[in-house]
Amino acid sequence: MTDQSTTTTLTEDECWELLAQQKVGRLATAVGGEPEIFPVNYAVADRLVYLRTSPGTKLAELAVNGRVALEADRLAVDVAESVVVKGTAEILETDADLSMAEATGLVTYAGGGKDVWVRITPAEVTGRRLEH
Amino acid sequence: MTDQSTTTTLTEDECWELLAQQKVGRLATAVGGEPEIFPVNYAVADRLVYLRTSPGTKLAELAVNGRVALEADRLAVDVAESVVVKGTAEILETDADLSMAEATGLVTYAGGGKDVWVRITPAEVTGRRLEH
Repeated sequence: MTDQSTTTTLTEDECWELLAQQKVGRLATAVGGEPEIFPVNYAVADRLVYLRTSPGTKLAELAVNGRVALEADRLAVDVAESVVVKGTAEILETDADLSMAEATGLVTYAGGGKDVWVRITPAEVTGRRLEH
Repeated sequence: MTDQSTTTTLTEDECWELLAQQKVGRLATAVGGEPEIFPVNYAVADRLVYLRTSPGTKLAELAVNGRVALEADRLAVDVAESVVVKGTAEILETDADLSMAEATGLVTYAGGGKDVWVRITPAEVTGRRLEH
């Protein structure tokens, strides 16, 4: 290919704006050197990322106190923006944490039965925009 | 939520059909226990997955003989289909391999300069459809 493209680094505010606008992301885990990737519905609040899953799922198992990376993007013909949140996932258990999670109003594709809440506390948020 | 959803396992043929129809996926790696995730353009041929990247990129570094997981999906209002390919990535070097890769006609968002070809040899391909 001979066409040119430009890459711009997104600011942290732009990253969170994109994350707030999207509803579906992909969660990557790396337990035992084995990469796993899951499409997930998520919500953000106070710069924390919330997911819901069902008890006993692979996601629930892998996300416990684990390092994770969540990617969300906005793709158009000439512009592709992508944000990656790296951080630590934990399953929420206290009433206070669960109240904050439920206040996000997160709805998932899979519907009923998703009563495990997972919160990702970000260590690093990066994003970039490709234009051509 | 009280609505119901059904989950169907996709056949291997359905998985490859979805992979062939989509152009953007997300690649997860797990080097040193650290999950990384990259949005990527990819192509499939003969049930192998091809990516292009630039020399010296993090993706190129991580993909060398590494275990990877690539996810692609097709999301609509009432149906979400997602396929995950797990396998081993390698950077292509022989003329024969490069010819096969270039024959896919893979075009990337980032355009020029992507002269490293990566091939994923699948060990496992799984997919599912959520409907509600």
